[in-house]
Amino acid sequence: MPYQETILKELYHSFESHNLSDGLQVNLKGWVRTNRNNGSIGFIELSDGTTFLNVQLVYSKDQVDDFDSYSHYLTGSSLSVNGEVKLTPNMKQPFEIHVHHIELLGGVSDDYPLQKKRHTFEFLRDIAYLRPRTNTFYALARVRSKLSYAMHKWFNDNDFYYIHTPIITGIDSEGAGQVFDVNAKKEDGKPFFDKPVHLTVSGQLHVEPFALALRNVYTFGPTFRAENSNTPRHASEFWMVEPEMAFCDIHKALKIVENLLKYCINDLLKNAKDELNFFNAFVDKNLLERLHKIVDSSWEVIPYTKAVEILEDAKNKGHHFDNENIFWGMDLQSEHERYITEQVVKGPTWIIDYPKEAKAFYMKQNPDGKTVAAYDLLVPEIGELIGGSQREDDYEKLRQRMEECHLLKDDSALWYLNTRRFGGCVHSGFGIGFDRFLMLLTGLNNIRDVQLYPRTANQVKY
Amino acid sequence: MPYQETILKELYHSFESHNLSDGLQVNLKGWVRTNRNNGSIGFIELSDGTTFLNVQLVYSKDQVDDFDSYSHYLTGSSLSVNGEVKLTPNMKQPFEIHVHHIELLGGVSDDYPLQKKRHTFEFLRDIAYLRPRTNTFYALARVRSKLSYAMHKWFNDNDFYYIHTPIITGIDSEGAGQVFDVNAKKEDGKPFFDKPVHLTVSGQLHVEPFALALRNVYTFGPTFRAENSNTPRHASEFWMVEPEMAFCDIHKALKIVENLLKYCINDLLKNAKDELNFFNAFVDKNLLERLHKIVDSSWEVIPYTKAVEILEDAKNKGHHFDNENIFWGMDLQSEHERYITEQVVKGPTWIIDYPKEAKAFYMKQNPDGKTVAAYDLLVPEIGELIGGSQREDDYEKLRQRMEECHLLKDDSALWYLNTRRFGGCVHSGFGIGFDRFLMLLTGLNNIRDVQLYPRTANQVKY
Repeated sequence: MPYQETILKELYHSFESHNLSDGLQVNLKGWVRTNRNNGSIGFIELSDGTTFLNVQLVYSKDQVDDFDSYSHYLTGSSLSVNGEVKLTPNMKQPFEIHVHHIELLGGVSDDYPLQKKRHTFEFLRDIAYLRPRTNTFYALARVRSKLSYAMHKWFNDNDFYYIHTPIITGIDSEGAGQVFDVNAKKEDGKPFFDKPVHLTVSGQLHVEPFALALRNVYTFGPTFRAENSNTPRHASEFWMVEPEMAFCDIHKALKIVENLLKYCINDLLKNAKDELNFFNAFVDKNLLERLHKIVDSSWEVIPYTKAVEILEDAKNKGHHFDNENIFWGMDLQSEHERYITEQVVKGPTWIIDYPKEAKAFYMKQNPDGKTVAAYDLLVPEIGELIGGSQREDDYEKLRQRMEECHLLKDDSALWYLNTRRFGGCVHSGFGIGFDRFLMLLTGLNNIRDVQLYPRTANQVKY
Repeated sequence: MPYQETILKELYHSFESHNLSDGLQVNLKGWVRTNRNNGSIGFIELSDGTTFLNVQLVYSKDQVDDFDSYSHYLTGSSLSVNGEVKLTPNMKQPFEIHVHHIELLGGVSDDYPLQKKRHTFEFLRDIAYLRPRTNTFYALARVRSKLSYAMHKWFNDNDFYYIHTPIITGIDSEGAGQVFDVNAKKEDGKPFFDKPVHLTVSGQLHVEPFALALRNVYTFGPTFRAENSNTPRHASEFWMVEPEMAFCDIHKALKIVENLLKYCINDLLKNAKDELNFFNAFVDKNLLERLHKIVDSSWEVIPYTKAVEILEDAKNKGHHFDNENIFWGMDLQSEHERYITEQVVKGPTWIIDYPKEAKAFYMKQNPDGKTVAAYDLLVPEIGELIGGSQREDDYEKLRQRMEECHLLKDDSALWYLNTRRFGGCVHSGFGIGFDRFLMLLTGLNNIRDVQLYPRTANQVKY
């Protein structure tokens, strides 16, 4: 066979390095995105999975054996195409394929739900298994994978070790919260495990002991919340990245987060250029500008106490907040966070040193006796992206907080406390909601649209 | 401070590139592995998490301010050390640190369970959260992370996209099997999801639709079996890698597996050299030889039918099998697999084209009407490492097998069948038990010792 089996990525790559020959005979396999004809010449947009870009197949009545069949190949069909490369310097796409012969590998039944027209995201959510065949979700799946890889690469290059923390667990990292129970029976009818277990809400408690041996570690895996909140930012199953660093205080930790996030965004701006351009054109016109701002700015650090002063000041000067009950100790609400990050700082902002009562038991108590060394990253238009803290390394203080939170009523979390008696040290960590980071990177504003098979209350169709 | 904060990895790296200066003043932070003294000079083996290698700290009575305190720092304590590099060209280790001052960051209580002596793996399993502080599990955690990264890197470099398939699912990929149920209630007391759901046993069915858009994809995540089998090779929670390739038949698939596995093993032989040397010295004396054999050999392909002939022939010539009931259609048992891979081939061996009845419903039926295009990789001394198949792409044949397996009694798996009517194509995939691959790479022969927090029946201590 004179036709060289190849992939679109290779052809585009050859083109970019000026090595693509006009007339090259190729065999391509892929799926029809669109197919139209004017009676004598037909045009198929073919996607082959190897690049975000499609290629145009041109088949003309006087050069192919079966124009009529070709013209009936429906969107979604899979094809094997023999043809030759035709450079098209005067057109939008740099080359097209002039078809010699097409073999239909897999046709499409009449009830195929995807058509040329634009479908709503709601409609597409209902056919999650076909979504990756649309431009938006094809781009999303690619960006999701590229972001995963960028993260793994950064961690590897920076001596972080990947720790697979358990999904089935007997402890509740947040000290409260709605969890999914896990159950099975053994052959004898007895419970499979010797105590009640549930799906993890965070890998943090399990990853910390590894930081106390491997220094810099991270988890990257699914976590679960049985929270029945029907918002665009909550799902029952979502992926979290949770780094933990020994010999690292809050200030060092802020630098690490900033390095990691800027690296990932820059990596995608470079390696997912076509996909981000698509999102910028069709999903969120401010996307690229926002991403560039994040990587180009230095991120401001504002202590919680100062943030409350800023809000009080704004209120006194007449700025309207829906919730005007502003006082030290309050939970900052979305409108308050937005005011600070969008109106005051106009860029990514760390809020640090939150009131102790508002935060988790494991956070390092500051010398002031009132606050903990917690840090949340707020991003304009996005809200909270990352939360973390220096960890309480004082055994007695941690014991007391765990008792207050009823975590020592049995011995299931005693091992965690013990790490503070067995060669503990200053350490810090944080959690990135991977799906929320993807929302930032794509402009998609519903978590159901950045997950591949979203799970929310009542929703497990696939 | 004249002491330069650094990490052991950097010091070893400088040494290897002939850039490490005798007398360099450094600050190191890490954990005591051992501490001994002869009354006037003391020696601490310090691990800092950044390399498998330790460094020896030398503190002498006439040069430090508090020799007595230093000599009482227990195994496991965390330290901050100021000292200077002393090159030691005549000793086993290339350099040591002559101590000026040590600060104890975190001491160790008397009940710290790890001592200098060697502990049994059984004992250590019971203190999973402290295991990474022992040489064996420190090495294991590092190899586990490096293997994960090698895989992600190979997939990235070969245009495979990482797909996060769901953990909570309503379908059972294997068509049978013991699953963990997942439950939660909403505030109104009603079930959280609108149908019974459980923990996934495989991401394959969910990843296949993505292969039909992105061509080459893979999952890498936790999977679950509520199987009460107390063997060294079974766990209730384990990580699987499941690639799926469009436009790929069984023969192309075998090449892909071979490339991937050889790449990973070669990568670890290079990038986890110290760790593998340790395992070879202390866990399995044949480890390196076996790994080199796997990467250096070409892997033989034997159809199941031929394998049965080989076994019959061996039996007739007097070879003893415990199970001598050898016939076409039998399940090959461990002793049969071992005979073929260890006695006949003496290397990694593919068995392909198994009887249809013995294999899963989604496997491609061969033209003979009796076998399916399945492939299992058998490795000497290890057994089955990988299983996969070309997938049934014929709608009618798949429908019939799904009906036989009672998978169409409701419509929860109908979408999977539909992919064969909506632009299907020849595709193949396989599954790698990540933990079992780690057993091969480390010589550790119990899956509980390659997992970080193992889960088996009755066992969820952490």
